[in-house]
Parts: sequence; C-alpha cells; structure tokens
Amino acid sequence: MKNVFGDALTVTLFGESHGQAIGAVLDGLAPGIPVDEEIIAHKLFLRRPYGALGTARREKDGFSILSGVYNGFTTGTPLTIVIPNGDTRSKDYEALHGIARPGHCDYAAHEKYHGFEDDRGGGHFSGRLTAALVAAGAIAGSALSLRGVMIGTHILSLHGVVDRGFADYAEDIGMLDKLLFPVLDEEKAEKMKEEIAKAAEARDSVGGILETALTGLPAGLGEPFFDSVESKLAHALFSIPGIKGVEFGCGFGFSSLYGSEANDAFEMKNGRVITATNRNGGINGGLTNGMPLIFRCAVKPTPSIGKEQKTVDFIKGENTVVAVAGRHDPAIVHRARAVVDALTALVLYDLYAGRYGTDFFGGKR
Amino acid sequence: MKNVFGDALTVTLFGESHGQAIGAVLDGLAPGIPVDEEIIAHKLFLRRPYGALGTARREKDGFSILSGVYNGFTTGTPLTIVIPNGDTRSKDYEALHGIARPGHCDYAAHEKYHGFEDDRGGGHFSGRLTAALVAAGAIAGSALSLRGVMIGTHILSLHGVVDRGFADYAEDIGMLDKLLFPVLDEEKAEKMKEEIAKAAEARDSVGGILETALTGLPAGLGEPFFDSVESKLAHALFSIPGIKGVEFGCGFGFSSLYGSEANDAFEMKNGRVITATNRNGGINGGLTNGMPLIFRCAVKPTPSIGKEQKTVDFIKGENTVVAVAGRHDPAIVHRARAVVDALTALVLYDLYAGRYGTDFFGGKR
Amino acid sequence: MKNVFGDALTVTLFGESHGQAIGAVLDGLAPGIPVDEEIIAHKLFLRRPYGALGTARREKDGFSILSGVYNGFTTGTPLTIVIPNGDTRSKDYEALHGIARPGHCDYAAHEKYHGFEDDRGGGHFSGRLTAALVAAGAIAGSALSLRGVMIGTHILSLHGVVDRGFADYAEDIGMLDKLLFPVLDEEKAEKMKEEIAKAAEARDSVGGILETALTGLPAGLGEPFFDSVESKLAHALFSIPGIKGVEFGCGFGFSSLYGSEANDAFEMKNGRVITATNRNGGINGGLTNGMPLIFRCAVKPTPSIGKEQKTVDFIKGENTVVAVAGRHDPAIVHRARAVVDALTALVLYDLYAGRYGTDFFGGKR
Amino acid sequence: MKNVFGDALTVTLFGESHGQAIGAVLDGLAPGIPVDEEIIAHKLFLRRPYGALGTARREKDGFSILSGVYNGFTTGTPLTIVIPNGDTRSKDYEALHGIARPGHCDYAAHEKYHGFEDDRGGGHFSGRLTAALVAAGAIAGSALSLRGVMIGTHILSLHGVVDRGFADYAEDIGMLDKLLFPVLDEEKAEKMKEEIAKAAEARDSVGGILETALTGLPAGLGEPFFDSVESKLAHALFSIPGIKGVEFGCGFGFSSLYGSEANDAFEMKNGRVITATNRNGGINGGLTNGMPLIFRCAVKPTPSIGKEQKTVDFIKGENTVVAVAGRHDPAIVHRARAVVDALTALVLYDLYAGRYGTDFFGGKR
Repeated sequence: MKNVFGDALTVTLFGESHGQAIGAVLDGLAPGIPVDEEIIAHKLFLRRPYGALGTARREKDGFSILSGVYNGFTTGTPLTIVIPNGDTRSKDYEALHGIARPGHCDYAAHEKYHGFEDDRGGGHFSGRLTAALVAAGAIAGSALSLRGVMIGTHILSLHGVVDRGFADYAEDIGMLDKLLFPVLDEEKAEKMKEEIAKAAEARDSVGGILETALTGLPAGLGEPFFDSVESKLAHALFSIPGIKGVEFGCGFGFSSLYGSEANDAFEMKNGRVITATNRNGGINGGLTNGMPLIFRCAVKPTPSIGKEQKTVDFIKGENTVVAVAGRHDPAIVHRARAVVDALTALVLYDLYAGRYGTDFFGGKR
Repeated sequence: MKNVFGDALTVTLFGESHGQAIGAVLDGLAPGIPVDEEIIAHKLFLRRPYGALGTARREKDGFSILSGVYNGFTTGTPLTIVIPNGDTRSKDYEALHGIARPGHCDYAAHEKYHGFEDDRGGGHFSGRLTAALVAAGAIAGSALSLRGVMIGTHILSLHGVVDRGFADYAEDIGMLDKLLFPVLDEEKAEKMKEEIAKAAEARDSVGGILETALTGLPAGLGEPFFDSVESKLAHALFSIPGIKGVEFGCGFGFSSLYGSEANDAFEMKNGRVITATNRNGGINGGLTNGMPLIFRCAVKPTPSIGKEQKTVDFIKGENTVVAVAGRHDPAIVHRARAVVDALTALVLYDLYAGRYGTDFFGGKR
Repeated sequence: MKNVFGDALTVTLFGESHGQAIGAVLDGLAPGIPVDEEIIAHKLFLRRPYGALGTARREKDGFSILSGVYNGFTTGTPLTIVIPNGDTRSKDYEALHGIARPGHCDYAAHEKYHGFEDDRGGGHFSGRLTAALVAAGAIAGSALSLRGVMIGTHILSLHGVVDRGFADYAEDIGMLDKLLFPVLDEEKAEKMKEEIAKAAEARDSVGGILETALTGLPAGLGEPFFDSVESKLAHALFSIPGIKGVEFGCGFGFSSLYGSEANDAFEMKNGRVITATNRNGGINGGLTNGMPLIFRCAVKPTPSIGKEQKTVDFIKGENTVVAVAGRHDPAIVHRARAVVDALTALVLYDLYAGRYGTDFFGGKR
Repeated sequence: MKNVFGDALTVTLFGESHGQAIGAVLDGLAPGIPVDEEIIAHKLFLRRPYGALGTARREKDGFSILSGVYNGFTTGTPLTIVIPNGDTRSKDYEALHGIARPGHCDYAAHEKYHGFEDDRGGGHFSGRLTAALVAAGAIAGSALSLRGVMIGTHILSLHGVVDRGFADYAEDIGMLDKLLFPVLDEEKAEKMKEEIAKAAEARDSVGGILETALTGLPAGLGEPFFDSVESKLAHALFSIPGIKGVEFGCGFGFSSLYGSEANDAFEMKNGRVITATNRNGGINGGLTNGMPLIFRCAVKPTPSIGKEQKTVDFIKGENTVVAVAGRHDPAIVHRARAVVDALTALVLYDLYAGRYGTDFFGGKR
C-alpha cells in the first residue's frame, strides 16, 4: 500500500520536498471531532528547527485544510491537509544530480524509479513530508486526549548525554508538549544542546534516542499477531526517515534479564488489575494491559552534513566526493519527536476505531 | 487486518494452542514454485525444542498441505498448511483459568475477548502458532533462494554471552541453517547453553538477541514511508511472541555516532555501486541499497517459568501466586530464529512480488 | 488481495475441487457469537443439488471447525472451516486436460498459471469452493439475525418463468430459508422445475435471476464512494461463479423511468422516516436508508453441459469438440441462492463491524 | 477502506461539493508515464454538462497536479490532483438543511454523520467528486493506451431510445472518446437528446444504460473469486453516484438462455485462441479470456429535479415538500460515461500492475 497506512483510520501521504506542496488525507475520522488549527500549528511548531540548533530553512508550514472539516468539526469524510512548499532553493540541489549523498537514498531511489524520481532535496523521501504527518497526527491526538489518552516523548539520549527515564506511571509526560527541546532533566538538555552545537561547528551531526509514553489506555487494545500494538506502532515509526530502531519496555535490555526479572507481577489496586513493574512497556502478547505504553526509537544522525564525504556519481559510474551544502539540521532528534507523537496518535486512533467503531471519538448533535 | 498480513503475498494465520489444529494460508504465491516437504520439515525441526535445552512437549509438527500444490509445484492459488495439535495436556492449564501468568496476555486477552477466549496454553496467542508461520516461510524462502537471496540468523547474545558479528558481507550465513543452535563462534554456543542450563535449574528463563542477514538483494526494493523495508519487516517481526525490539544496521548504537561515522561512503567496485561500510544495514530511505540487509531482534526471556510469582486471579479479583508448571523452554531464542527467518522470507517475497509481479518467483511450462 | 475479502471481517478462501479439502478462515468475528453446527449444516444443505434437479455427485460437505470456536461460542480469533473433498472422480477430468470447456476458465487459467494450475474439475475456480463460503456465511448470518437482520432470496425468474416479487416490506422472506427450491409462488416453482427437467433431458442447462431482500437494517450503513453498500455487495456477489449481473432496486429498469418516478418520496410514519416506495432498493448515495435492501443477481446457465460443443485443445493448439461428461447440475440458480445469502451476510457483518466495532455482534460473560 | 480503493494502484478520493476543493491521490503509478495535461482536460471536458443538455453551473475543473509529476513524467510516488471549487452557490442549499431530497442520501448521511456532515449540495456524496476520478483515470487510461488497451463507452439506451450494440470486436470504440454525447447511431443520439429536452421542460430527468468495451487485453488477467475482473470492476463502478446495475456480457439476458447458447465456443484463429461469440463479455471464471471485455451500467435518472416532491424534514421530523432548485442536469448518463471510463482504467491498471509489477506501464531512462 506504499503511501497509504492504517485500517479503520487510513492516512495517505503525498508530495515532494521541492514540488508544489506536500499533504495528507485522513480517511475514517469520526464525525464531530473538534478541529483546532492552533493545535495543529503548535505541533508543526514543535517539528520546526529553531535558532542555532536548526537549519536556516524557514518552513512556514502554513497549512490548509481542503476538505473534511465543516463549522469547526470533522465531517466524517476525508480530511485533507495541504502544506505548500514555499522557500525551496532547488538550485542548491542541481549540482547533486547523480551524486549519492551518503546515508540518503538517492542511489536506491534511482534504481527504483529509473531516473524519473524528483531528486531535488530527497524528493518524496525528504523529511519535509513528515510535516504533513504531524498535522494529521495533531487531529488524531486531539481526539485521543478527549478520551483521556495522553502521549509524551522526550529525548532519552543524544550523543551520549542521557536524560532520566519517565516516572513510574509516566505522570511527567504532560509538560513535554510545551517544550521545543523535550528533556525531563533541564541540565541534560543544556548538555545535549552543547553536543549539537559542537557537531554543527564541525559541520557534522548527531543522533539520539527518543522515549515515548502513553497513559490512559484500557487493557485489551491491539490484536494477536500481525496487528499487535508493537507491530502497528513499529510499522508506522519505521516509516519516519532516520528511525533505525524501535523497542518496547526493556527492549534490547531483556537480553540480559532472567524471566523472573522480566515478568511484571500483577496485583490488585483499588479494584483494578495493575502490574507492580512495567518492564513490558504496557503490552502483553501484543495487547495493551492497561499500564502506560512505553517505547523507544533510535534516531540516526542527520545524514546531510557539510563535511566532505567519499561517494559516487551513479549516473557517470565513478567515484567522487560530496559536501552537502544546503541548510541542514545538525540534529533531528528533537524534531523527530513531533513525528513520533503524530504517528503514535494515528496508530492508537486506528486501534480504537477498529475495536470500538468509527464513531468512537466523534460527537452527536 | 488482525491475522492477515501482506500485500502481494498474504498470510492468514489461525488456530489455538490446544484446539484441533493450527495453520496458515498463503495467497499470492506464483505458480510453479517447487514445494519440497523436506525443506518445510527441516525448518520446523529448527523451531523445535531439543534435549535438555527444550521443553518436554513433543511437537511432531506433522503438517499437511491442504491446497495450492499440485504435482509438486505451487498452483498459484491459495496454499494451505495445517498442523494438527497432537499431544496437548490441557489439564495442565485448567488450574490456571482466571490466573494472569506474568509476562503473558491472559489478563489482556480476557479484557479483549470478554471471557470467550480459549485460554488453554495461551490459546491463539501461543508461540505454538509460529510453527505455521515457519512452514509458510519455508516456501517463501525456497522461492527466494532460487533467485539467489539467502537468509541467515544467529544468536548474537544470550544472557550476556555475546557471539561475534557477521563477516563483512555476511558470507557466513549459509551454514546457519544447518545449526540447531545457531552461533558463529562455537565456544560461545557452549557458554550460552550453560546459561540456559543454569536458568533451567533455577526454574527460570533467559532472553537474547538475534542477528539476521540477507544477501543477494538488489537495490531499490521497498517503498517510501509506510512500506519501507524497515516498516514491513518490523511489522512482521513484532508479531512474533517475545520479540520486544528491532533495529537495523547500527540501530540504537546510532545514538552515539556522528553523522560522518554513521553514513556509509559509496564507492564503485567492479562497475557496481557498493558502500565501504554497512552501518545502515543495507537500507537507505527505506529502500534496499544492494548491500546485505542486517537487523537484530530482542527476544525476551520465556515468560513461563516454574518459579513462584506474584499475580492476580482476574476473575475473582484477588491477589494470588502462580508457578507455571507445564513444559516450557528455559529459552526460546534459538527457536525464535526459525520464526524470524520465516517472516523475513515472507516479507521479502511480498516486496519482490509487489514490484516484479505475481509470476516473479514462478515457473513456466 | 485475491482470495481474501473484507475489512473489519475478512474471509480467506482456499482449496481446489479435487484436492484434499476446501475451506475458509474468518478473521474479525466478535467473541461470544453462538456457533450452531446445525445451522451451518442446514445452509450447506440448501446449497446441495437434490434429486432429479441436481448432479449425481454426493457432496457430503462434512465440515470441521478447526479453530476459533470454544465451548460453542466464537472466541474472537480466526475461525477456520474445512470441508474435505470426498467423492471426487478425478478420472472424469483427465481426458479434459488441455481442452477448454466453453463457458469455463480452463484456457484463461492456463494463460494465468502457465500450466501449473490444478485443472481437475475447474480446480480452484470450481463452484465447489462456494460451500466454504456458505459455511462461513452461516456464522455471519446467525450473528446478524441475533440483531434482527433477516436475509432471504428467491428465484425471481428461471428460463423465462417469472416468480412474483417480494411483498412491500419483504415480510415474506422468513420462509425462504426453509425451501430447497425457493420460489414465492408455488405454481411457478413447478414450472421452473419443468424447465430444468427439460434442459436436463436435452443435456443442456438453464440460468435465472435471484432476488434478495434484507430487513432490519438501520439507516446510515455503508460508506461514500468505494465502500458503498452497492460496491461491497457487488464485489462479493460477482465473486460467485456464474453471476454475471447485479442490480439494486429498479436496477436496469431505471433506464426507462423519469426522475419523478425513480425517486422514493420520504414520509414520517410512527415517528420514523420511511419511503413510500422502494425503487432505490433501500440505498441512497451508497448508504442504507432504513428500508429493506433489495437486489437481484443474474445467474448464467451452468456451463458444464453434456451436449457436444466446439472448442479447442489449447495445449495442442487445435480445434476439437467436447461433451462435458461428469456429473453436473442442469441449473445452479437454486444452489447459488445459498451462496448469495452467505456473501450478503458476510458483507453486512463487515459493514456493521466497521461502523460499530469488533464486539458489536458478540457477547459478554 | 471507505475512500481508498485499489491494491497495486490505490486512489484516495476527497472533497465536498461546496468545500475548498476536491481531489484524488494516486499511489502506485509506475515511474516514467508521460502526463499530458491536455488529455486530462479533455476527459474532464467529456464529463461536463453542455448547452441545453446540461446544468447552468460552470465547472471550470481547472485542476492542479500537486505532486508525483516531474519534467512531464510520473515519478512513481503519489500523484495528487486538486480541483478547486469555484462557482458554488451554497445559498441555494441553505433552505434545504434538514430536507431529505428524494433519491439523495441527505437523510442517510445525517444518520451516519450525526449532523456533522457538510450538507451543501450533497457534500462529499456529490457527483462533483467524480471529476477527480475522471482526472485520475485519464492518467491510468493513458498508460493503458500505450500498451494497446482501448476503452470506449456509449449510451446504449436512454429513456427507451436504444442505440445499436458494439460491432463484433468493438472496433468502433475508438471514435467514442471524441463525442461529447457518445452514441454509435447518430439518429438515435438526436432522439435521446429530444428525450432529455422533454424531461428538462417538465422539470424532470431521465436515466439510461451505458455500454463499455475494452480491447487489447491479454487472457489471464484477474484473480479467482474476490478479485475477479467482474468483482473489481463492479466495486469501482457501483461507487459512481447513480449507477444501480452492472452486468457483463449477456448479463441479465443469460436468464433466458440455454447453456448451449450462453457458452462461447472456442476456436483457433491465426494461431490464437478466440471465441466465436462473446456472450460472456470477455471473462471466464473471473479472468479475461483475450476477447473484448464488455459490460453495461444502469444509470438512474438524476435525482435532483425541479418538480415538487413529497418528503420529510428529518430534523423537525415532519412531512413537507421540496422542489430542488439549483442547477441540475436532466440527465447524467452522458457525463457518467467519463466516470465509467475513468474507473475502468483505474481498475485495469491495478490488475495489470498486480500481475506484472509496479514498473509495467513505466519507462526507463
């Protein structure tokens, strides 16, 4: 299905970095969800580069909603968001035609599309397209929050600087949406920024790890096997450019635990079933168990760097070197956060709507 | 789609641990793929517990192919494999009715299915179902190998014992299919087995990390965004019970690298484009780049352990303790390998068939 | 998706006419639907040939439910029905290898499957496979009837003999399920049977038109455009071998009406919105409007006839003649009825479950 | 999947009649298909009302391609077409709020969307959206014609005036694309126009039957059962507002034939297998057999008429009358033709791409 994702709620993604516009169509939204353009704008703001940390490219991300909203509420028919591509300096990319930027898919895309690909700025593969996902996710996230589901992501580590983990029940996720650089421990935020500045100075870049928590989920969401919560989330998360790893609960850390350490003991608390620990990240057998859902994403360093790198001209078939000029982020970890939140909201909405029906998040008049 | 997965090739999975049978239907196979029951049987053998390492349950895994094969070749219409459930001691599970085994989804499934779930031995959520996936994957894998695609998986680490990584071009994967306990360094294999034996003695269990490589892939497989190679593989892999993390190339290790270290330099070699290193695991922008595809899966320790654990009776709504009797593996890492190989084969087949059409792996008469 | 159909409820169909077995997997059923094997057996009975009207082949249709039912109720996980192929005289078909039976897809299938198709008795394309759909539909239909939705089909015409249409609100559909040869006007039933007998004598066959009504549906089921009630139903109905036309309400008759005749006037009745006539067959804009849903299917004459027909041997590439021996129905209209009912039930279940969620038809314990 | 359709090629449809814009996203197009905006404009022209026959609403249908085309060729990534809604007189519809226009889905949509639907001019259910499908289909149709596949549709009957059928091998379809009012027999065209004029005068409307032929198809396209050519085509065709019947080959006429009349005899001709007649419309067992594919669609009379009709105000819950002012076509049969051609092209493209892969219709550089 390529650029279409989801079952009860589907998102169709389109556009190229230097084309006319990028956008997304959301099909399957309930009728009657309030659509607040301020919330969408805020989420897009969180995805933007800023100050010294970011690229010089001004992405206004002035979005339009072409369909699916009437009198401030979703209609229940497809909602289309379009974000025009304004300030694109395609010239920066002309010299790169045929040059495989290391870490990018220029060469692979050329093999796939036989030279017909729009190769300016990565074309359809550009991180720019994630802005449309962030806008779409903002709507799904609003709907979830009306039902008490909260999503929060922080930078757990960035080039070796490690933030503290979430509190026991992730009570601290609420504040994250306000932070442009979401770190739980302020001191660590400063150190991370220093790492980014250092990389920028060296015309290099850094990567990191994002940690996400969701609260307010019931037990029993998800499906066995192919639509396990982990499967659907990972499918969506790995579609984000730069994400190279996803783990739930202890994830790779499970490999050094005993089963007796890895299992979360159940216990009754105020008449509810909870687990005493949450090493499984709120998921058992692919289904939510009612505890906070916790996962982590590995974000690789921005592949576009100013440093000279060895590479090939795949059209001429010869070795060459490249230094990616243009305007690039020395780190995209903090920006990827907004995309992780968005896709998480879209997947959870989909799981809810599959189980509880198309009207679940909607209103009645 | 719950228990149906794939686009050009779909697999439908069914059955319960203690029901009549488990099985899978493969729809979309090319006509003319040779079906060798010996290969299927061998793959099922690799999934089996053995000797002191395994559970006492004898899984004969005597499979039947009900449809889709005629005169030794696939017909191109749905291929159905059924594996009857023979030696099931449901009695072992009767006492567990209402008891949430820690690390299992008994409680979550009860919330989802309102008490109608077949809860004997995990029912539909049992690892037993992966036998059907292994059989299905054997057929897809045979087709891939006819086209020069090889898949191999080894145990990279088990409770702290770490195997060496794959050779530069993963030339050493061919032998893995012959090993019941697939480790590249024999000494490490012995140490891992000691860890398993130690856990077994303590009525406990251990987890580990599997590393998989594919060779022989062309550049340009996969799709942008939602059908990236990473997305589709992770979707499938996370459907395997016990898998809690998936990473490609350096994965979580990217978080401490600079971009200049993370990027793989391209170079011409014998007229072909290759990369000097392979930190991105053979994938750029979600597409294969022609290098070996490399990923790792975190496998949590078997949740079924003989040790007494705190838990709840969710029907009575009270705290209790449980020691999971029955016959269980102190480690499923080596068995999960066969499932990882199978799902990898199914996903790659799907990607090929989507791109090159339904007949790609087939024959002509 | 080939042999997989449906969104919230998917059915996967497999098997060949002369293979080991045929069957279907239903994924997405709610937990807690009572499964009564008598009802399934009865529906299979309605699909069977009988006496002088039918073929001599005894289809026992002894089905097994391999998974998805526990203690008499659906579990909510995939339900698999298998029907072994017992009395198959493959020899009857050996002589036909390479011969294109007129009206059958032997030649087209050969082009598609390059000679690897199982060509005995039509293989996977055989009407025999509809038995699995009937069994699957029986379960969906049971669930619908618990919610007050009734489905009934009669033979509206058979080789020129025309039955009366449904009563105004299709109140007469309830009796149809009891009739092996479902006709509203008994006299017409006799005349139809005479037509069949006449065709049989001439080693020929006849076709007809089935008319189906559903009562008890709410307004607002279905989706705009691609998942209109008409689209989904027609998709399913045209998968039945022999169905060559589908029309809703006045269907092709609309072509001679004025808009003022074609439109159904709305009116209030006992506080409910109804229409005074039902020329649109209970559907407006692709959505149900709360009136009985009415459609008709054209069933072509059984293509297998004993008469000698001109044809080709497509392997030798030469003209020849064929008289299809074997055991065939001179009419499949009355049998197709059971399949139409079954697919209708599956599609409606799917539409309900998409809108109201996976648990809609299920139970609670 | 609601507003998303197709497997190898998917079309996502969005917009409302009086919203900002309507549009469609095509995902799965091969890279390298030439995109000629003149062809798209011509197909949109064929869908437009004209002169006395049409509505007064000027639909400029000035479309923009937002993505997926670069230097005149498809890129292989999603192609997005947007058609802004210009001249919409929403005021005409304000008085209709809560009034169920007979033959329209206002009431059903209100039940489905709980009052949040955009009800101006039918909102998302408006025939206006088919303009986006026509534009999308123009691209698929161009690709097909490069491979020798031709599609043509004529008005077979309109309010009782009947055109002659296609020539034996539908050699006469080529001219149809040039006719704004596509009828094979010119005299009949005039009579049909008279019928339309008569209906217009009476503030009423008329319906008709469209007949479509495709030439140049190979044998073996399509899939058994759920993806039969008939199933996929009917699914798409029934999504067109106003289509209430679809039949293939003799369709409903099969009900009065004997099998010996209904079967098409095969014969060898110049080394190729053909059929002497084409009563099955080029399809056997759901697969193309290499003969022209022929089907018919019943189009109901335009439901919007100026005549006063009885109906209800479903918000107030009381009986009322309505005369639909606004600007409406007394017949949409000739316009529906463009939509039928478009959806046919999209479905055939999908079938080809599924079988022969994503690159089948594309180019190489």
